Amino acid sequence: MKFSDLIVSLGELVIRTGSQDCDLHGAAAITAATPSSISFVMGAKYRTALEQTNAAAVILPDRPELVAIAEALGLCWLTATNPRLAFARTIAQFYTPFRPAPGIDRHATIDPDTTLGDHVSIAPGVTIYHNVTLGDRVCLLPNVTIYPGVTIGTGTTVHAGVTLYQDTQIGDYCTIHAGAQIGADGFGFVQTATGWEKMPQSGYVKLGDFVEVGANSTIDRPAVGVTSIGLGTKIDNLVQVGHGCTIGDHCLLCGQVGLAGGVTVGDFSVLAGQTGVVDGVSIAAGSIVAGRSVVRQDIKAGQWAGDPLVPLPQWLKLAAKLKRLARS
Amino acid sequence: MKFSDLIVSLGELVIRTGSQDCDLHGAAAITAATPSSISFVMGAKYRTALEQTNAAAVILPDRPELVAIAEALGLCWLTATNPRLAFARTIAQFYTPFRPAPGIDRHATIDPDTTLGDHVSIAPGVTIYHNVTLGDRVCLLPNVTIYPGVTIGTGTTVHAGVTLYQDTQIGDYCTIHAGAQIGADGFGFVQTATGWEKMPQSGYVKLGDFVEVGANSTIDRPAVGVTSIGLGTKIDNLVQVGHGCTIGDHCLLCGQVGLAGGVTVGDFSVLAGQTGVVDGVSIAAGSIVAGRSVVRQDIKAGQWAGDPLVPLPQWLKLAAKLKRLARS
Amino acid sequence: MKFSDLIVSLGELVIRTGSQDCDLHGAAAITAATPSSISFVMGAKYRTALEQTNAAAVILPDRPELVAIAEALGLCWLTATNPRLAFARTIAQFYTPFRPAPGIDRHATIDPDTTLGDHVSIAPGVTIYHNVTLGDRVCLLPNVTIYPGVTIGTGTTVHAGVTLYQDTQIGDYCTIHAGAQIGADGFGFVQTATGWEKMPQSGYVKLGDFVEVGANSTIDRPAVGVTSIGLGTKIDNLVQVGHGCTIGDHCLLCGQVGLAGGVTVGDFSVLAGQTGVVDGVSIAAGSIVAGRSVVRQDIKAGQWAGDPLVPLPQWLKLAAKLKRLARS
Repeated sequence: MKFSDLIVSLGELVIRTGSQDCDLHGAAAITAATPSSISFVMGAKYRTALEQTNAAAVILPDRPELVAIAEALGLCWLTATNPRLAFARTIAQFYTPFRPAPGIDRHATIDPDTTLGDHVSIAPGVTIYHNVTLGDRVCLLPNVTIYPGVTIGTGTTVHAGVTLYQDTQIGDYCTIHAGAQIGADGFGFVQTATGWEKMPQSGYVKLGDFVEVGANSTIDRPAVGVTSIGLGTKIDNLVQVGHGCTIGDHCLLCGQVGLAGGVTVGDFSVLAGQTGVVDGVSIAAGSIVAGRSVVRQDIKAGQWAGDPLVPLPQWLKLAAKLKRLARS
Repeated sequence: MKFSDLIVSLGELVIRTGSQDCDLHGAAAITAATPSSISFVMGAKYRTALEQTNAAAVILPDRPELVAIAEALGLCWLTATNPRLAFARTIAQFYTPFRPAPGIDRHATIDPDTTLGDHVSIAPGVTIYHNVTLGDRVCLLPNVTIYPGVTIGTGTTVHAGVTLYQDTQIGDYCTIHAGAQIGADGFGFVQTATGWEKMPQSGYVKLGDFVEVGANSTIDRPAVGVTSIGLGTKIDNLVQVGHGCTIGDHCLLCGQVGLAGGVTVGDFSVLAGQTGVVDGVSIAAGSIVAGRSVVRQDIKAGQWAGDPLVPLPQWLKLAAKLKRLARS
Repeated sequence: MKFSDLIVSLGELVIRTGSQDCDLHGAAAITAATPSSISFVMGAKYRTALEQTNAAAVILPDRPELVAIAEALGLCWLTATNPRLAFARTIAQFYTPFRPAPGIDRHATIDPDTTLGDHVSIAPGVTIYHNVTLGDRVCLLPNVTIYPGVTIGTGTTVHAGVTLYQDTQIGDYCTIHAGAQIGADGFGFVQTATGWEKMPQSGYVKLGDFVEVGANSTIDRPAVGVTSIGLGTKIDNLVQVGHGCTIGDHCLLCGQVGLAGGVTVGDFSVLAGQTGVVDGVSIAAGSIVAGRSVVRQDIKAGQWAGDPLVPLPQWLKLAAKLKRLARS
């Protein structure tokens, strides 16, 4: 595409632009760019990378010293209020994730008691049991299995090998990545004289709209009630969400995070990679928990780290002290 | 169902009951109950929740002050020796996990050299290779793959997308949740001058009766011999059991636990979430290891926590000291 | 097989042998061996196990005291430069991992625009989208899904339920275990006033030759560029490799390791189980990181452990100090 057309597509994100135009065939990292690609830099620390780039065009923060470099190099450039967001939308101009055409493959098995929206795409090996409702433009990749009573909202994509257990509710415009298992039994057993007796897990899982679930993550159904994931929340790969958790809107659960049962996570919270949360704990809205932490008690909004969990600045000091102790 | 019929079904678990009867249509948490549902409370700390419940009926511990509240509210009530167990059995009155009807789907691929029990249920997309034996009432959900030489005992359910590698032995009445991979190669390589040479993993995995394996968990085969999971042991989601582990009877391995190779876990042990065990370590029967611990050496029965691993009371003191150190 | 034939097959690994010959029907651990099996011991600490073994034959390090025991017991024996490697190659004499015969199952769905090598094996439930290239002797087990633009090299085996997202490149002689998901979207989102906007993940994943990926592991595609795994690197189960990571040659990533985005791992590095690496960190070639560590900053070659990460000897001292602190 023409750089000038890209500027138009980015709309209000653009602050200023240079006078050059050029043809672009892709987006790339600043250090890996080719003469037909566009890249971006976030701030002054990428100055050297900018000076050495092979890119044809760059998206910059609105800083004169970076603009001057781009001008000197004869690059196409624009400055943006949020260069990272502008770059995200630029990538979208060049890349379309794979999505099979609408239609139902003859190797799919669909119960007659299924409600199908318009333009759904159902791939080979998909099995849909009774009393399932798929919204318009739902896309099911190969070998997705849908147990009875499931509903999937408009425009949602479910990648290969996902299982949705009975009564799972998926909102609109969600993406469920390959191998995620949603609605399997929560881990509930009662100790008896002869061993562990199963607590039947009769509840269900509900995902809001615009939720993304990473590859091979698991979200369990509870004994009673619902495990719920709020609007716009994003879950990375290999994350475990236990039975009866309530995750708010617009949260991030990063890779390998594990939530035991009955955890509450408030809106706009971020749990970084490998963090664990003990059962029944409540995390206030707006909390940010550093990677590999353990949340064993309720926490207020703030930045937290470690095990024992402390405010992040304290954790940094503690880590420094432990390093000294290790050397002494 | 009638509350009076429920009382009968619970049998010896019931100590006392009120005189009310009512119709029940489901089970719910005490705070989420509706006027047609039954709930339970475990002890005095749920007193306020009991006072405010909308439930029609409640299962209580045998405590007069809780009974008095239930009576004052005009609820149906019973007291039970183990309210949680009584509630588990109550849920089972209202809920049946999905299970396809017996029969073999035409989209399944079954080697002629397969021994099938009575009333097996084999879903679309299942593939069974040669020399496999399925007991009576085995249920295989869609896209289960069974490599040669596998045996599955009576009444076992294998959920969608599970793979059982060659020679895996599954006992009776087991439940394998979606995406679990059983019998993949243990992680064994020998360093050579040119890189890592594979140690062939010629052993197999054996699960006892009444074992449950969570979604997307993995249990590896060893180089030689067997990786075994004892009777009644329950494994949560995303758990890794390495090659050659010997897990005893009635153990619990909670979410994201990871066992390296050759680990021994004695009967009735509990490893809480995200705990790791180093290769070759032996954990005595009856051990309880707190979440996010690391077991790097053999341990005796007891409660353990942390990394370095110490007795749980010591870990609590250490955590308090580290918190003070972080603040100072 | 005859022990004497085994000796021939092991070639230069053999240093010395006894004069006995015998028939062997399998390989086993020294403590579990039967009178028709061969076993091995690594060193003097297995002396008692050797004295009590039921094995017919043993592979030994070249130590006179162990040879003397084997002679006294009347065992067949050989000494090897690397007993573990000799045992690996011995197992390979008795065990062949399951591999379906070449051919394309009628329950597979293959786009006409697919390039197939000779002697490929494609199982039931496999789906291959357009523009895919499979090398000679590629083996795809049931329910493997291959998105468009994927290439798979000669002799690679892909186990059941694996998904290869679009444009993934797999080298020659790789093994991808069941449930691994390769090329799913990296976890990239940009915060906006209304929530998290997706950074499209337009890059791809590339695996070198002789790579092994464990069951249910995940390797993500990046926003731009490539996530690459070097020649001969072995990845265990439930490992997360984030978007844009560059893993060198001959590395080991053990079970449940998690790498955030943009991590670099140099050749011949070993990350033990459950270790995490923060985004953008660079790990020098030849690094060994102990289990359950967190690498939050670039590290030089060496042995590392803990969180905060310190040299392994320091970590051992620190752990001892913390244990004392816990007791005091």
